[in-house]
Amino acid sequence: MIYKCTVSYDGSNYAGWQKQINAIGIQEIIEKALTKINKEPIEVVASGRTDAKVHALGQVFHFDATIHMPCENYKHAINALLPYDIRIVKVEEENDDFHARFSAKYKRYDYVCSFDKDNPFLYKYAEFVPDTIDIEKMKEASKYLLGTHDFTSFSSSRIDERKPRIKTITTIEFVMETKGFRIIFKGTGFLRYQVRMMTATLLEVGKHKIECEEVKEILEKKDKMACRYNANAAGLYLVEVLY
Amino acid sequence: MIYKCTVSYDGSNYAGWQKQINAIGIQEIIEKALTKINKEPIEVVASGRTDAKVHALGQVFHFDATIHMPCENYKHAINALLPYDIRIVKVEEENDDFHARFSAKYKRYDYVCSFDKDNPFLYKYAEFVPDTIDIEKMKEASKYLLGTHDFTSFSSSRIDERKPRIKTITTIEFVMETKGFRIIFKGTGFLRYQVRMMTATLLEVGKHKIECEEVKEILEKKDKMACRYNANAAGLYLVEVLY
Repeated sequence: MIYKCTVSYDGSNYAGWQKQINAIGIQEIIEKALTKINKEPIEVVASGRTDAKVHALGQVFHFDATIHMPCENYKHAINALLPYDIRIVKVEEENDDFHARFSAKYKRYDYVCSFDKDNPFLYKYAEFVPDTIDIEKMKEASKYLLGTHDFTSFSSSRIDERKPRIKTITTIEFVMETKGFRIIFKGTGFLRYQVRMMTATLLEVGKHKIECEEVKEILEKKDKMACRYNANAAGLYLVEVLY
Repeated sequence: MIYKCTVSYDGSNYAGWQKQINAIGIQEIIEKALTKINKEPIEVVASGRTDAKVHALGQVFHFDATIHMPCENYKHAINALLPYDIRIVKVEEENDDFHARFSAKYKRYDYVCSFDKDNPFLYKYAEFVPDTIDIEKMKEASKYLLGTHDFTSFSSSRIDERKPRIKTITTIEFVMETKGFRIIFKGTGFLRYQVRMMTATLLEVGKHKIECEEVKEILEKKDKMACRYNANAAGLYLVEVLY
């Protein structure tokens, strides 16, 4: 039986979803819990990786279980073995052809910016930006990123050359919050570092350090060296994966 | 010159305000920063201690400085030397007779309760309680704690026998929040563990494990062994000290 799990985690203490050399990955911790429950090695497949310090409200993974039990019981059994900063939110039964990565249709990432730099509770959960930032200009610049593009310019140099770098962004929305704002990105998928690099570039526009049109120029270069900006991992949240 | 400082901190990573054996206290970190700025040993005096893992939004301390500079500059100089989870919010010049502990007239502590036990971001910042909790009953029971009483029953056994244990609580307010609530305690001062022990006792009432009247009975015993409940330090915030 294939089980689909939705998991929420505070990424602060982890090297990211995947195991790193000398550092613990979230995947590893979840697999250990499932292996204990199933009494045989269980591997999980996520919708995609999240980097070190990046958070998730709705990361999705699947696993093929030998032990069957009602979904709610599975949820409690896994949570009982997980640390408090990783919580299974939902467990669902799926058909055999369900695949957390290949079946994913849309993803939503939020990037959280705060004006409240004297707040000691936020540095692991937001990027601090000046409250003078020009959000209208950021909105204007973000329009260049909407639609279907080759996003090579907004990707890590460690990217796999063989993978397609054409993605579709359907939504970039700015939501004002108490002492800050969040940028909501929705699309068919995102390259490694893409959301953070796009955000950092938009923040440069908002700080009047570059012009709106430079976002378009960077995008059109399709060059991994074109964008020099990368926002803090702490502000990034994988919010939702749709199937 | 006496400077009064308001400081906010995430207590998660600290042994409390005061240095403990083999553990770092917040006071120590602030004194180290001030000593560096003043180029001679500086000691700070707080409005009171906070225990390990307890947070502060508005703890107050004072220090006697040899180096004089505008308050805003002092704030930036100290913050530049502090870790991100300790932030000086305000620096003010005071008269020589100002004393952060002895001049304090009122304190406000908030205790934060959350229904959202699957939220991996909250376990260091709130106490998880069931959403079936009877808040009306808690409000009713809290009335016994209002006013001037000997709060020995709601204090640590490690309390100093010589210190007065009569305190006045002027406000106990329940504020509903998204997926939880906070209890606001205001008073002339609080004994060690008092807010956490009062909260834990009220939570027992809310869970229908004890009757409202038992709060009164515990209080009237004036016995350090009378209350067996103590709420998680993570939910407690020193919000404000008034002078």
